[in-house]
Amino acid sequence: MGSFMYNFSFQNPTKLIFGEGQMAKLASEIPKDKKVLLIYGGGSIKKNGVYEQVASALSEHQWGEFGGIEANPGFHTAMKAVEKIKAEGFDFLLAVGGGSVCDATKFIAASACFNDDPWKILTEGARIRDALPIGVVLTLPATGSESNPNGVIDNYETQEKLAFYGRKLFPQFAILDPTTTYSLPAKQVANGIVDAYVHTMEQYLTFPVGADLQDRFAEGILRTLANNGPKALSEPENYTVRANVMWSATMALNGLIGLAVPHDWATHFIGHELTALHNMDHGQTLAVILPSMMAEKREQKHEKLLQYGKEVWGIDSGSEEERIDAAIEQTRAFFESLGVKTRLSDYGVEEQHIPALVEALEKHKMVALGEHRDVTPEVSAQVLRRCL
Amino acid sequence: MGSFMYNFSFQNPTKLIFGEGQMAKLASEIPKDKKVLLIYGGGSIKKNGVYEQVASALSEHQWGEFGGIEANPGFHTAMKAVEKIKAEGFDFLLAVGGGSVCDATKFIAASACFNDDPWKILTEGARIRDALPIGVVLTLPATGSESNPNGVIDNYETQEKLAFYGRKLFPQFAILDPTTTYSLPAKQVANGIVDAYVHTMEQYLTFPVGADLQDRFAEGILRTLANNGPKALSEPENYTVRANVMWSATMALNGLIGLAVPHDWATHFIGHELTALHNMDHGQTLAVILPSMMAEKREQKHEKLLQYGKEVWGIDSGSEEERIDAAIEQTRAFFESLGVKTRLSDYGVEEQHIPALVEALEKHKMVALGEHRDVTPEVSAQVLRRCL
Repeated sequence: MGSFMYNFSFQNPTKLIFGEGQMAKLASEIPKDKKVLLIYGGGSIKKNGVYEQVASALSEHQWGEFGGIEANPGFHTAMKAVEKIKAEGFDFLLAVGGGSVCDATKFIAASACFNDDPWKILTEGARIRDALPIGVVLTLPATGSESNPNGVIDNYETQEKLAFYGRKLFPQFAILDPTTTYSLPAKQVANGIVDAYVHTMEQYLTFPVGADLQDRFAEGILRTLANNGPKALSEPENYTVRANVMWSATMALNGLIGLAVPHDWATHFIGHELTALHNMDHGQTLAVILPSMMAEKREQKHEKLLQYGKEVWGIDSGSEEERIDAAIEQTRAFFESLGVKTRLSDYGVEEQHIPALVEALEKHKMVALGEHRDVTPEVSAQVLRRCL
Repeated sequence: MGSFMYNFSFQNPTKLIFGEGQMAKLASEIPKDKKVLLIYGGGSIKKNGVYEQVASALSEHQWGEFGGIEANPGFHTAMKAVEKIKAEGFDFLLAVGGGSVCDATKFIAASACFNDDPWKILTEGARIRDALPIGVVLTLPATGSESNPNGVIDNYETQEKLAFYGRKLFPQFAILDPTTTYSLPAKQVANGIVDAYVHTMEQYLTFPVGADLQDRFAEGILRTLANNGPKALSEPENYTVRANVMWSATMALNGLIGLAVPHDWATHFIGHELTALHNMDHGQTLAVILPSMMAEKREQKHEKLLQYGKEVWGIDSGSEEERIDAAIEQTRAFFESLGVKTRLSDYGVEEQHIPALVEALEKHKMVALGEHRDVTPEVSAQVLRRCL
């Protein structure tokens, strides 16, 4: 007797505006009476033409800008944006960039309306009751942050990476133009593909509950990323390939595929500590941890590992254990084929660092992870040892 | 050189509330100050317990009821509901039933706010600028009407079946409890599965534009319906099976899978005339026409037919033409396995009736159907002859 699909409620209000040349729609999506703060990262949008496109689309709006959001968006940087918003009266936030800029913009939007210390949103789960309206111009497909109400913020002083959530944080719209991703560095593209792939796996590779369509959708995203990922690197201006990657990354974490099924976000949470303590890219942490998590949990995930191997990689011969080995190896090989290394040693992280990582997990109450809540600190340590 | 994914905007505001026992959420989804008109069909909801569940959930609301919506919802019946609404001041419409009740409720919601003759919405495409708010309790998975802004209305006097659309017509919420479908007659379940399957095919079986993920999602729905459809009939109280069918039908026509790709609604439009003139069930018309349309358009749909056969039915041996034959035959066999006959002769429709059907298509300007706009009245006649 298997489990049943879980009950759920689903509503995703973000308007997705997809395709080449869609930037022109920006002007009509933001009310004319809004004072817009354009938020961006390290300035690549000033080199690739996106900044000019946005400026041109906003020619009839009052607007200002705030740059310098970090790849792992920092709490103190966000607080500076909040100060600027309060001083100058901005009332619409436009994130232009990837998931980091989206996440930072959400945190800024919430903090600007928060009547207490915003740090409590991250550390005490203080409820976000209001937020400034948000729009997104996405330039890096990866996190799905452009159409979900979640985010992650780093505190560089305390070396912490913490998640937050609030229904008011769904962007009102997101413009997804695949051509804006052509000029991205290969490393960012690869990290983004790994991120979207692992998001999908974390909503899929658990135990079966009979949710056939949810499984087919997840496998569809995984296959699309597997087929298009390497080409996204070798043919950076292939519109179709970049469009498939961009749409897959959005669908991987807009809430849809996670409905009705158990989740296992252990890989992400362990990865967060690697970023916080060792400055690894988020995608790198996932590429390292996921294959080892699959191996560590191969008994509990037995059925889904077989299904994953067959449906995504066409693995249908050999003993069950051989097929599971092959599924894990294919996953690792896929990440490596994107140029994302899958061993901690590739990043200078060694066995001696594991205790501090586990201590950080404990500090952040990440002591019962996984779909069965049995990824204890000891299990996380074991997974990390497998990653060496 | 292939085509590219089409640009699109997508926003679906309907809140989907899925699972056994979710009816209790009804009370909190409708503001307490609304006067609710419960709209339903032939009265099956009074036999299967759904009416009592709804009444119980609405115990703190003011509400009334309007029954008698036809399986092919009639214009004049809808107008009677509008009279009642205006006379008694209802300001929230709750559709309880299947796609017919949803469609009727949408038309009623629009007509109640329309300052001219509502018939013009159907015949002149008059724009729907406002509508009463709508909620849905779905009891028959089929049309997807519970989370889209479309509908179809019949005029029994003029023997016409006409489509309408309006962004204001998205239901605010839809409650999908698979257990409410247990007591449905097998024929309605089968027709619903055919409807959802054909909706998916009409957004998929055209020509490739490189939309990999859209194709995987459509194939996922088709596979889920193919695998669960016969079981939905043989095990009517199998929750998992009914849940998969219900979720697939919603996802088949909530707008998602149709993004970025060409559509071919010719089967639906020709089917509408068969319902209007010969009173065939909607699902029956689709089961008859689709296999013949696939055969008639096998050259234009060549690539997608091969892909469909392989991905949905596992057909990967034989010549290309043999594989296409097999894909068409599998489709026909699937409909027949559900007890839905696939020949016009099964329904008493003969060659002599074809001219009147084609004339009706012409009257309704259905003279350039299909993804290439080349399904002329002559081609429709040819398809109908293949259906005999």
